[in-house]
Amino acid sequence: MKIIKSLSEMHQLRKQYTSSQQSIGFVPTMGYLHEGHVQLMKQAKQENDLVVVSIFVNPLQFGPNEDFERYPRDEQRDIQCAKAAGVDVAFFPQVEEMYQEEHSVIMQVQRRVQVLCGAKREGHFDGVVTVLTKLFHLVAPTRVYFGMKDAQQVAVVDALLTDYHFPISLCAVPTVREEDGLAKSSRNVYLSQEERAEAPSIYQALQHGQQLIQSGNKHVKQIVEEVTRFIKGHTRGKIDYVDILSYPQLETIDTIDRKIIIAVAVQFQQARLIDNVVINEHGITMTDGR
Amino acid sequence: MKIIKSLSEMHQLRKQYTSSQQSIGFVPTMGYLHEGHVQLMKQAKQENDLVVVSIFVNPLQFGPNEDFERYPRDEQRDIQCAKAAGVDVAFFPQVEEMYQEEHSVIMQVQRRVQVLCGAKREGHFDGVVTVLTKLFHLVAPTRVYFGMKDAQQVAVVDALLTDYHFPISLCAVPTVREEDGLAKSSRNVYLSQEERAEAPSIYQALQHGQQLIQSGNKHVKQIVEEVTRFIKGHTRGKIDYVDILSYPQLETIDTIDRKIIIAVAVQFQQARLIDNVVINEHGITMTDGR
Repeated sequence: MKIIKSLSEMHQLRKQYTSSQQSIGFVPTMGYLHEGHVQLMKQAKQENDLVVVSIFVNPLQFGPNEDFERYPRDEQRDIQCAKAAGVDVAFFPQVEEMYQEEHSVIMQVQRRVQVLCGAKREGHFDGVVTVLTKLFHLVAPTRVYFGMKDAQQVAVVDALLTDYHFPISLCAVPTVREEDGLAKSSRNVYLSQEERAEAPSIYQALQHGQQLIQSGNKHVKQIVEEVTRFIKGHTRGKIDYVDILSYPQLETIDTIDRKIIIAVAVQFQQARLIDNVVINEHGITMTDGR
Repeated sequence: MKIIKSLSEMHQLRKQYTSSQQSIGFVPTMGYLHEGHVQLMKQAKQENDLVVVSIFVNPLQFGPNEDFERYPRDEQRDIQCAKAAGVDVAFFPQVEEMYQEEHSVIMQVQRRVQVLCGAKREGHFDGVVTVLTKLFHLVAPTRVYFGMKDAQQVAVVDALLTDYHFPISLCAVPTVREEDGLAKSSRNVYLSQEERAEAPSIYQALQHGQQLIQSGNKHVKQIVEEVTRFIKGHTRGKIDYVDILSYPQLETIDTIDRKIIIAVAVQFQQARLIDNVVINEHGITMTDGR
């Protein structure tokens, strides 16, 4: 596995592999790799000649109350993890090179971001699309991989690629789950024993909502109430949101008449868990989330 | 010469020529091609395996008081002109495909634009960088060509390419001039006979400023005054601006101690003429404008 730290090295390598017509699967991450990332890398490996993983804690996507400095980093573990997953290139760009001087041209996300987790993270997705645009130019991937666990991020990247005609395919990878259905997350370790036992009912609540749609219920308000009731009845977590929106537009709707997302965020004592399902108007899961 | 009108055709062609490792010179235009464009196409032809010209009147870069509908168009003449200049691909994207739906992600230029002609064209350069980002992804050029006549545009494109690490070289082509020094422009035909006789003194004024710097004068204010006096003394045009700024940052300076631009805009009866010189701190012309 090649380890690359300078942009000029990445530039040279990109020239090499584009001239040899190899397809590139790209997994952009902030490092501290976990099972979710491994899933992305493995799928990228299956579908491409080469896999590039970037590991870059992007200062621009942290809000003023979010601690960029304290974000966990472990370069050696990340290298081992990427190597084990069959990654060909681990790209560690440096902040000084990525943000050499203040930008003259800024990017702002104006839609798909005022809802769900984005509602409380003003400017977060501006930072995400900015760094992704840079990385896409540096890496020139054929396909880029994101996990559906963060469905809003997938929706924003979909908009970025479409709006600017990037010649890159977006691959949304289904959420990896524990055997009892709980979405895997590095935050799950912060759950108490009781909370951990209750947490699978978050996904059960989403499935309950999905079943209501399958059985013909088209009323968004009713389904949101049912999902909310289910979570309240089965966990002591505090509901942050339960939302049904069009997907990937993430617009408010009254009736289930197109592809939608049911998304929830539940706050436990020490951990805030999120989960979602993306389904069509008949209640059928859309595995690629698009 | 290939004529391409759909984005999917352009997409296919781009794949073809990137896989055959041919270098691409790209000249983005709004059509109604004139001698300035021909100069860009010729230089692109010399420096690349293939030349792509795009002809697209970009609605997003027109202000509310600027008439997008009335902008001159002549597809057949443009095709003849491009063919004669040795262009390989004439790309006519359609507005409906370029702006399929309202953007979720917008681009804004925050520096280099509040001065010179940009000061009165709010949002103009936002439209320019948006369409160029799309075109750069669609065409994937090795080099992109702009004329130094619009030095501010070159400065903004320089920022766009640098900020987002586009793997594209910016080639700024020197302004083409009449024998008497007047910068060529399709607007020159609107000058009266008297105005046309006076107009070369605009470039003479710039050269006068340049000579002052060469002879050691470093005072921006003094040189601006001298250039202004020269234009007033030799033409009946109304001065819109005479400015000396750092280049390509386009920031206000007091002292000539780096690369700078002397830029002027003069309003005649029926035509507003612009011109500039880009020189280093010793007064030496920087031919590539960078």
